[in-house]
Amino acid sequence: MTFTFVTLFKNIVEGYFTDSILKRAIDKEILNINYLDPREFSDNKHSKVDDTAVGGGAGMVMNPQPLFDSLSELKKQSEEVHIVFLTPVAKSFTQNDAKRLAKKSHIAFVSGRYEGIDERVIEEFGDEVFSIGDYILTGGELPSLVMCDAISRNVDGVLGNSESLSIESFETPLLEAPSFSKPKDFQSCSVPSEYLKGNHSKIRSLKLALSECKTKFFRPEQLLKHRTRKSYEK
Amino acid sequence: MTFTFVTLFKNIVEGYFTDSILKRAIDKEILNINYLDPREFSDNKHSKVDDTAVGGGAGMVMNPQPLFDSLSELKKQSEEVHIVFLTPVAKSFTQNDAKRLAKKSHIAFVSGRYEGIDERVIEEFGDEVFSIGDYILTGGELPSLVMCDAISRNVDGVLGNSESLSIESFETPLLEAPSFSKPKDFQSCSVPSEYLKGNHSKIRSLKLALSECKTKFFRPEQLLKHRTRKSYEK
Repeated sequence: MTFTFVTLFKNIVEGYFTDSILKRAIDKEILNINYLDPREFSDNKHSKVDDTAVGGGAGMVMNPQPLFDSLSELKKQSEEVHIVFLTPVAKSFTQNDAKRLAKKSHIAFVSGRYEGIDERVIEEFGDEVFSIGDYILTGGELPSLVMCDAISRNVDGVLGNSESLSIESFETPLLEAPSFSKPKDFQSCSVPSEYLKGNHSKIRSLKLALSECKTKFFRPEQLLKHRTRKSYEK
Repeated sequence: MTFTFVTLFKNIVEGYFTDSILKRAIDKEILNINYLDPREFSDNKHSKVDDTAVGGGAGMVMNPQPLFDSLSELKKQSEEVHIVFLTPVAKSFTQNDAKRLAKKSHIAFVSGRYEGIDERVIEEFGDEVFSIGDYILTGGELPSLVMCDAISRNVDGVLGNSESLSIESFETPLLEAPSFSKPKDFQSCSVPSEYLKGNHSKIRSLKLALSECKTKFFRPEQLLKHRTRKSYEK
């Protein structure tokens, strides 16, 4: 699977792939990471890529031309490329999107900077637009990496034995139960005794109770979803 | 303001600070970035930091001891450090949190890897726990960077003239209106003519209508919030 990062700041993105799970997937040639810098396509003699906003307002907006030309070039090179714009004005990225997009062969993430991207480019090239959460960031680079990471986990062969796809938070509406590792007693604090007794059906029901408790505390609206789903299943 | 990243994978984090807005803030000594590797505190002779989960389940869990010792050391060095755990089992990080946390002098982000962190460490050291969205990532490093970036934008002196804090999506429940830059005609596509006529009150009301339209399409629940707030203000 190929990911292309369309960004003015390649160097703040590429460091993420120098270690851990995604690096191993790149080494095994399961993932392939490319970069495209709109500045290199600017027809301005100073390679300018932004200008003041038409209609007024604070801040600079990315010009249409450099992005238009770089994305045209990308589509010429790769017919199947699926182009995603990262912008706060978009639907929220979720685990279902991560699974769905893992089936694509090539995804390009276009990062805005400054006050945003000229809307005409999004209209022309955007297959989808995503926001990763309700907070403001300095650019689309971190959201691109977040989507790339979440999607990659769902590509066959990316996760090794020490990681796992199954029973994670957001695979169901419930958050996960607490995890404990060795030793069972640490700093005079023990893991819940039920976890140690080896009765797996009891452990499962304790974990479910703890999951519901955590979900009720942190994400009450998710608990509601879980209960609705359960009553459908009955 | 100081940020400490507590992570097994410093090298996938530090690249993000090599360019753009956050690099400038570091150069100006407004931000200060540190790293703490729990592996260096492991008392296991092979520097092991994870083990199988007590009570069963797939995947490995980070042991309490290396994190316990590294966070104890951090608290000894910095009394005012505010410790945040990044985990899917947590409340959702929002723009209000970014603004609130920008007033702290020192924040540490603790990244989990594998199936998670032993709950006893979170109980002992966590001042807050956050999730950045409803998707599963390979570790807490990207969420740490997302929080660091969103918080930093709200620290005095971090944003330059070309960026702006005002009227962004998530500062109000409405998403932003589309932005346009020069030229006003590009590839036979013009910016909305109202944007060009210079009547600022008309531009403002068009932008508000476009904002409401975008919000209704992408985030209908946010539009409801906006309308409730407006009716309170009346």
